[in-house]
Formats: sequence, C-alpha cells, structure tokens
Amino acid sequence: MLKKILIANRGEIAVRIIRACQEMGIATVAVYSEIDREAMHTQIADEAVCIGPAKSKDSYLNMQNIISATVLTGAQAIHPGFGFLSENSKFAKMCEECNITFIGPDAETIDSMGNKSKAREIMIKAGVPVIPGTEGAVKGLEDAFEEAKKIGFPVMVKASAGGGGRGIRIVKEESEFKKSFETARAEAEASFGDDTMYIEKFVEEPRHVEFQILGDNFGNIVYLGERDCSIQRRNQKVLEEAPSPVMTADLRREMGEAAVKAAKAVSYKNAGTIEFLLDKHGDYYFMEMNTRIQVEHPITEMVTGIDLLKEQIKIASGEELSFSQKDIKITGHAIECRINAENPDKGFMPSPGEIKYLYTPGGIGVRIDSAAYQGYIIPPSYDSMIGKLIVHGRDREEAIGRMKRALGEFIIEGVDTNIDFQYRIINNKAFKEGNYNTSFINKEFNL
Amino acid sequence: MLKKILIANRGEIAVRIIRACQEMGIATVAVYSEIDREAMHTQIADEAVCIGPAKSKDSYLNMQNIISATVLTGAQAIHPGFGFLSENSKFAKMCEECNITFIGPDAETIDSMGNKSKAREIMIKAGVPVIPGTEGAVKGLEDAFEEAKKIGFPVMVKASAGGGGRGIRIVKEESEFKKSFETARAEAEASFGDDTMYIEKFVEEPRHVEFQILGDNFGNIVYLGERDCSIQRRNQKVLEEAPSPVMTADLRREMGEAAVKAAKAVSYKNAGTIEFLLDKHGDYYFMEMNTRIQVEHPITEMVTGIDLLKEQIKIASGEELSFSQKDIKITGHAIECRINAENPDKGFMPSPGEIKYLYTPGGIGVRIDSAAYQGYIIPPSYDSMIGKLIVHGRDREEAIGRMKRALGEFIIEGVDTNIDFQYRIINNKAFKEGNYNTSFINKEFNL
Repeated sequence: MLKKILIANRGEIAVRIIRACQEMGIATVAVYSEIDREAMHTQIADEAVCIGPAKSKDSYLNMQNIISATVLTGAQAIHPGFGFLSENSKFAKMCEECNITFIGPDAETIDSMGNKSKAREIMIKAGVPVIPGTEGAVKGLEDAFEEAKKIGFPVMVKASAGGGGRGIRIVKEESEFKKSFETARAEAEASFGDDTMYIEKFVEEPRHVEFQILGDNFGNIVYLGERDCSIQRRNQKVLEEAPSPVMTADLRREMGEAAVKAAKAVSYKNAGTIEFLLDKHGDYYFMEMNTRIQVEHPITEMVTGIDLLKEQIKIASGEELSFSQKDIKITGHAIECRINAENPDKGFMPSPGEIKYLYTPGGIGVRIDSAAYQGYIIPPSYDSMIGKLIVHGRDREEAIGRMKRALGEFIIEGVDTNIDFQYRIINNKAFKEGNYNTSFINKEFNL
Repeated sequence: MLKKILIANRGEIAVRIIRACQEMGIATVAVYSEIDREAMHTQIADEAVCIGPAKSKDSYLNMQNIISATVLTGAQAIHPGFGFLSENSKFAKMCEECNITFIGPDAETIDSMGNKSKAREIMIKAGVPVIPGTEGAVKGLEDAFEEAKKIGFPVMVKASAGGGGRGIRIVKEESEFKKSFETARAEAEASFGDDTMYIEKFVEEPRHVEFQILGDNFGNIVYLGERDCSIQRRNQKVLEEAPSPVMTADLRREMGEAAVKAAKAVSYKNAGTIEFLLDKHGDYYFMEMNTRIQVEHPITEMVTGIDLLKEQIKIASGEELSFSQKDIKITGHAIECRINAENPDKGFMPSPGEIKYLYTPGGIGVRIDSAAYQGYIIPPSYDSMIGKLIVHGRDREEAIGRMKRALGEFIIEGVDTNIDFQYRIINNKAFKEGNYNTSFINKEFNL
C-alpha cells in the first residue's frame, strides 16, 4: 500500500482525498498557492508545500513545481483530484517518468478519451452507442436527405462552421427536410461564408445520465450504478441524484454493461465515468468519458457504501478489486447539492470573501463535503464551489424531504450563496415528480 | 398522520425529533426553560413555549405546564425523547386523559417495565432468560449451598442490605462456598446489622448488548439488531457500536427473538430496547427494558437504514409497520462517541460555558447529532452531553479509522470536552480487537 501521497489540488476535493488517506493511515502532503496558505487542505495535511502564486497556471497547474514538491517530500504518489491537472496526459506521463504513481489511468488512456473524435471512434468500434450522425460533411441535398433517413428523424442539420445557434435546424419529419436544410445552409453561407453541412440525430428531451466505473490493474472492471446530472445551468451541473428517477433495473444493467465495454476498450484503470445522453424513448448515447474522480462521486458512495477515494488509492497501490459486479447493490436514494459562493440574483456572479458565520447541517442521512470553515476567506482566484451537501434516504421521497430540511439548516454568513436557489429546485413540482431533462433550469427558472 | 407535535425535551434529542418532523412535513412545538431561550431546539421549532425556570422539576419535568403548552398550541401529540418524562407512566396517563397522543408505549407497559421485580417476573413467564438467583433470602448455609449448586458456579453471595461492595463475595467453585458465605454474612452483620443473604449467578466478563425493537398497534414486533454498549464509565455509556464485535448471525437471531418475546409479553407498542448481559460463554440474561428511544439509537439507524424517529411517529399515528423481520438487514458497522462538555482530567467534571469556536467533522460516513452551535452557552443545569459523533463504515476496521479521523477534526473551543478521551478509547489495542467488556474503562484507564 502507498505510504505517502501528495494531493495536487485544493478546496473540498483536496480535503476529501486527505480524509481518505487519514482513514487508511497514509501520510499526506498538501500543495498550496500563496493565497491558500490558510485553506483547510493546507492545514489538515501532514505536510504542506507552497508551489507558487495564486494564479492557477503558476501553482496548481505548475507541473514542474508539483513534481519537485513530490520528490522533496518523498511522496510516492500524486492524487490529482478533479480539474487542474487531473486529465492532463502530459502530467501523467511526467509522473511516470519520475517514478511517481499518478492516481488515475495511464497517460495514453487520458489522451484517447480526451480527444472527442478519437473517443467516438473507439466507442463505435467497441459497440457502444454514440449519437448517430454523418461521419463528415454531406455532399448536397440529396446525399443529406439519404443520410437523414438512415439516421432516423428527428435529426439536426448543422453547419460545420456553426456556432451561436446559427446554421442549425431541428428537422422533425421527412417532409420538412428539404426546406430546413436549404434554410440552414443559406444561413451558414451568409454567416460564415461556408456552407459545409453535417447531420446528427436529434436527442429528444435528453437526460445526462453517467455511470461510475472502477477498473483495477488485473482487468477487472465494474460499474457502480448511475448518476442523473441533468439539472445543469449552462452545462454546469448544479444538483445530482442517484439513482436516476427514470432508471429501471434492465436499463441500468444494459447501460452499465455498455459503460464497462467502453472502459474495457481502453483497458481502463482506476475510477472513471462514462457520460451518456438518455432520451425520452430510453435510447442512450455515449457522450464522453471522464478519466478522473467526479465532483458528484459522493452520491454513488452513499447508495453503494463504497468509498471511491479509497478504491482509487488501493487500485493505484496495485491491489485487486475486493468485490465483483454481483456484490454491488444500490440501496436507497442520494442527492447532492453543490453549494457555491455566488449570487443567483446577479447572474450567479461569484461572491468571494470571508465566511463570517458557519453552521453546517447535521443529523441522520446528511453528509457535508466542504473545505469551508468559519473565518475562512474564499479567494476570488478559483471556482466558486465551497462545498457539497449530500443526503441519503430510504427512497427518493425521503431524500427530498431530508435535503429540504438540511438546506433549511445551512447558515453561511459573509458571502452570497446558492442555497436558496437549491431550495427552489428541490421544491419544484417537476423536480419532485422526477420529470426533468437537461433543459430543466432554463425552462423552470428562465435561466 | 399526526400534523403537529410538541417535543417535551431539550438538547440534541429535541433537535433530532424536530428534524424528523421537518422531513415529514409535521409542525413542531418546542418547550424550553428560561435558561434555554437561545438553545437550538427553541430556535429551530416552528413554535416555542417557555415552561418555567431552569430547574428540571420546574420546567422539563413540569407535567402540568407541558400539557398546557400542548393544549395551547393545538399540538396533537407529545414526543418525550429520553430522560425527563419519557418513562413516567403518570405523564403518559395524563396525556391519554387529555386526549394527547403520547409517542411511546402505554402507561401500563411503562409501569410494568419500570418495576424491576415485576419486569423480571414477566420475563421468566415469557421464557426470556434472566440472571438466575434465589427469589428471596436464603435460610442459612445449607439452604444457600443447595441454591448455589442449583444456580451453578460461579455465583455471587450478596447481603440484602448490601452496598459499596460490602457483604458481597464472588464464589468460583463449590469448595470455596462455605468460607466465602460465612465471611460475607459476618461482614453484612457487622456492617449493616442484618445478615440476610441471597445468591445470584455471577455473570463472567459481561458485555452490555441491547436489542432495538419496534412494535406497531397491530401486534407486529421486529428487532433491528443489537448495540454493544459495554464501554461504560460508572454505568454511563460512553461509546457504542453496532453490530457487537462478538455477535454471530445465530446468536443475533436467538437474542433478537428473545427480545421480541419480551416485547410481546407486554404487547409492546412503539420503539423500545431490551438490555441483556452477554457473558463470555455466549449466555445472555435480560437486564431491563427501556420504554423509549435511546441516546445510542443512531448506530442502529446507520446499519439498518431505518429512521427510528420517523417510525415512532408513524406508529403513534396508527400506521402499520411497512417492513417485516426479513426486510431488516444489517449493513456495515457503526460507532457512536458521546461528546460531553466535561474534563476527564478532573474526574469528568462538567464544563459548562460558551462554545467560542466550533468545527464539526464532515465527509463520508460521518453523522453529527448535536444541539451545539458556535456562540451557544452550555448551561450548568442539565447533563453534559452536547452531541454525538456517529460514523458508519463497510466494516469495523473502516468505522474505527473513520472515527479516529473524525475525532481528529472536531474542534470545540471554550469548554473542556472528552474528545481526546474518546480518541484514546478508539485507539486502544483491546478495543480495536473487540476484546472488551463492561469493565473496559476501569481496567484500561483505571477509572
């Protein structure tokens, strides 16, 4: 087992990693930027090394300094957390060359999954459904129409040079195709001076449903159920839940097995997530694979009882997975609300500053993953997430009641937060009914 | 379902009950003594009524004032928590007469279980093992020896008037009996002027193992596994865990069925606990039944996933249990440390005063049940428990690692606490091996 790990991250995920190490009796090294001297992760690690100024590129993205800190402190491994260097294959390679264990997959895997078209190719080859579409540009109206029929309506016609919604049309049925295609093409020509077009399946009322997987160094790969992350604002996840309100046991097995197939295609090692779009017909399509731990990993931990951070460390230490697919059971229901220092009434503008008073909710089924403490000054330099409030209940109804209760208890004074906004989501009728998709926040809150 | 509940208690259990009500959408009424105006339970309930001065007998034990507050606020039911009026059959009867639902068993059940010799009689009749012993005084040496042989060695000879360890002898084998009996009798005569003696089985290396039960108004009674509460200081529980490190599936079924038998003997309704002594041979004996929720109920909630407070309320509302014995599964391992404002270095003297800084541990598998907040002034008027730190892990080893980690994170400034003392327990070799009984603290810490 690894004996000393350097955590190349900050905030709540750094605290999360340090906690896992402490429970396993592993020594920890924090790295911090000059502005993070008083941050919780700096304080609770066994050792802490300053790696540069506040700006991420000078500290948390400064590979050379992080490698130096690792060598200097004698840490055997680096946990990259999420964001920053976590999906940087160059960094993973650098670790390898310096004989430091990178807690994550191989550099090669990071690379192939980081490249969208390469990942898509791999998935097609592995038999994992991807969003059907023309591989490249269509040659003209006739060709386009043939392709559209092959893909099946509804489809989207898209300008290759497109952006900002221009040169795009949703085509619901065959009879509308000609007109829509020509309009979109004319718009593309007028807007971008380029009328190259391609065609893609239009995914109706898509939900973002992702599968957590774990793979060890012996070829064992398992899935740990799904997370529904459809509650998003501008493609940023806001609230996640597990299981998905629309999941069935059969679909879970089918999608889970597809996720394992996807991971096996790249001989995946460590924790990863396969993101799918799930449409209203129950059809699902591979979107991308995240080759790291996710922000929303706790809801999977709550419903499976498996500590994902410890599993990451055990895998990186060369241990074989201690459970197989049949041992993994989904129990109850979990919801996570991301707690951000931001002002929803001012376009969710970040609200850095000092936390003047803090009361964190407690009691049955409540978990707080946070790096916040009273007196902590949230710096303006990084993202605005200051913690996560996670609840677990016997069923979805209990989890919702518990989240409402816990959000009501949360007190953060000194900075603005999105706690009330989260309360509005959890209290929303469509949400309560489980009846939502990725356009929920836009539709319900006009945001 | 009940719509409005008055909580006739204070501190963390009052907060626990209010949280359950909030999650169920039930309105709450707190009662508070003059010194508890700023207490958390007073603040978070929907309504709060002052019921008298700080002294318990004038407020939290003032039945008339509590009944008045209930009538005044239109609450339909009273939850008594633990301590105070929770096992007062007169109060339960008073509620009944005022048409207020008492959330607990009938007055009659409270009565029969509150009377030690009556409870013992009921258990013998129901076929639940009790500590074997002479029913009354023995007539002399010969009679005593016959009784001792019937009970089986080792036995204790005890002076009826005894106290402070005088007039008591443990007799390991038959050959020692005569001498020990005569010495104890002479000591009793000399100390108390009364040489009446009785004989009881000596329970060797006893563990305190208790079974949680739930019974509804339709005769359904289930057990929810056991709690090992052997870590005690002067008969006060300090740390509890579930399951017991010495429990087997067979013994759990046997003891659990005995607990259900005990509860059925009094047609038990609501939540209750059957306390057993479990000796080193695996023999167990009924000690007493607690006819209320216990301080240590959260560890049962953690390993069963069942919210006991909600179940209490549902039962009192007339609902049938929604699960049966076969649905109850024990998952993982839970430990609770009672966090007291007291000074272990000064004989555990209570340490009331203002909490000047508070940081409560968080992260995976950690639950805090507490009424403490920063700025709260712990009054000297009540017991010194300010909260409970509960952890859950996949197995005992993980739970211990997690508790160590969480205790290390806890910061309470302004008052003395037993956090370091709990750390010493959790870090103790015998404890880690699960090798302990009720004399653990005395033996390991000479306390």
